[in-house]
Amino acid sequence: MPAPEIKALTFDVFGTVVDWRTSVAREADAFFKKHGVSNVDGIEFAMEWRKLYQPQMEKVRSGEMPFTKLDVLHRIGLGSLFQRYGIGGISEEETDYLNRAWHRLDPWPDSVEGLTRLKKKFILATQSNGNIALMVNMAKNAGLPWDVILGSEVVGHYKPCPDAYINCADALGLPPESCMMTAAHNNDLVAASQQGFRTAFVLRPVEYGPDQHKDNRAEHDFDYIANSFIELADQLDCPK
Amino acid sequence: MPAPEIKALTFDVFGTVVDWRTSVAREADAFFKKHGVSNVDGIEFAMEWRKLYQPQMEKVRSGEMPFTKLDVLHRIGLGSLFQRYGIGGISEEETDYLNRAWHRLDPWPDSVEGLTRLKKKFILATQSNGNIALMVNMAKNAGLPWDVILGSEVVGHYKPCPDAYINCADALGLPPESCMMTAAHNNDLVAASQQGFRTAFVLRPVEYGPDQHKDNRAEHDFDYIANSFIELADQLDCPK
Repeated sequence: MPAPEIKALTFDVFGTVVDWRTSVAREADAFFKKHGVSNVDGIEFAMEWRKLYQPQMEKVRSGEMPFTKLDVLHRIGLGSLFQRYGIGGISEEETDYLNRAWHRLDPWPDSVEGLTRLKKKFILATQSNGNIALMVNMAKNAGLPWDVILGSEVVGHYKPCPDAYINCADALGLPPESCMMTAAHNNDLVAASQQGFRTAFVLRPVEYGPDQHKDNRAEHDFDYIANSFIELADQLDCPK
Repeated sequence: MPAPEIKALTFDVFGTVVDWRTSVAREADAFFKKHGVSNVDGIEFAMEWRKLYQPQMEKVRSGEMPFTKLDVLHRIGLGSLFQRYGIGGISEEETDYLNRAWHRLDPWPDSVEGLTRLKKKFILATQSNGNIALMVNMAKNAGLPWDVILGSEVVGHYKPCPDAYINCADALGLPPESCMMTAAHNNDLVAASQQGFRTAFVLRPVEYGPDQHKDNRAEHDFDYIANSFIELADQLDCPK
């Protein structure tokens, strides 16, 4: 029996669709300049902020912490970094503005063109750990043409928890085999595949900077492997 | 203090954006023709199907029934109508196809053009009692340019329950006052307004047919009152 037709592409977003590292660094540098913080580099700050993310989500996955939106996790992490770097005297409003740097991330150069082509043939759904407001504001800001915002807040679980994938397919009214997880991260695709999803690896070789030492290549036999969304659109015969 | 800026428009969909009555009637008539059912009129069938909707949702609202997706409520209603009209011998697959007529509703003639203009200035969110898959498939089919699919399945409540509105604004990360409920139904707007939403009434004088005797006019002092989404886009200064 042939594999069922792919109806929906579900996307990892941070790192796969948008370049969080240089976008957050740019906003952090502007913030430091405004507030006279001279001892911290934007890129380092972005990387340290992102590092807090997995252990925070692990607390949610393990049940140690109830489900908490990523905006709130980011805000807790930002407070910790302010402490660590001795940054003080910042108003709540300005802190929140910096926290929402994650709502203003820039897409990779091929993202909008590639997604626009993919949308002609497939349902495009975010399947990100980001919360709804974050994803909507990012899409409006960057011009990302999603059909539907899914992910953690809708399904109530953080990836790579199995329910994050199962509930996403269920929300779309589709069997997992008709959904293709699209990501720059091997572990996300492996977890999706274990729940029956098809898989597409899109290489993002500088997500973590020029010395990136993970996800530099597809480590498994994924259904599609591409160097950009435009290449993926070509492989999937999406019209220009 | 001036009212906060409107950032998002949240839309009722059935009746406000799409014409469920003639769309379902057309699909029902095609179904009857195919299956040799000669004693039922498509318009009547559509109206009777829709009538089952409020008492079903009321069971969910009252707690008598756990939260159930609209696709499932539609399917239960369809079974009742088949019984009532003596329609039998239909396969599960064909019954499901007819049930998904609600995924294929036609927009009103001004909907796509009006929404496309409104999208240039606002976040466009569905706030419908329809489930996610229904809303996504309808949008793909009809070309409705939503930024985000919200509503019952995301917020876990059916309108006009207060939490349906509160949780929707919360998902968008906005105070209710920055959200404008947009609907052809006075009761939906009144309920939204009670939770702090701004309100826009869009007249749909034949939603229930030529003899429509409710929602023929805005019965309250809503923030905006328009005869179409194009007129609403004009009133809100959205570029063409």
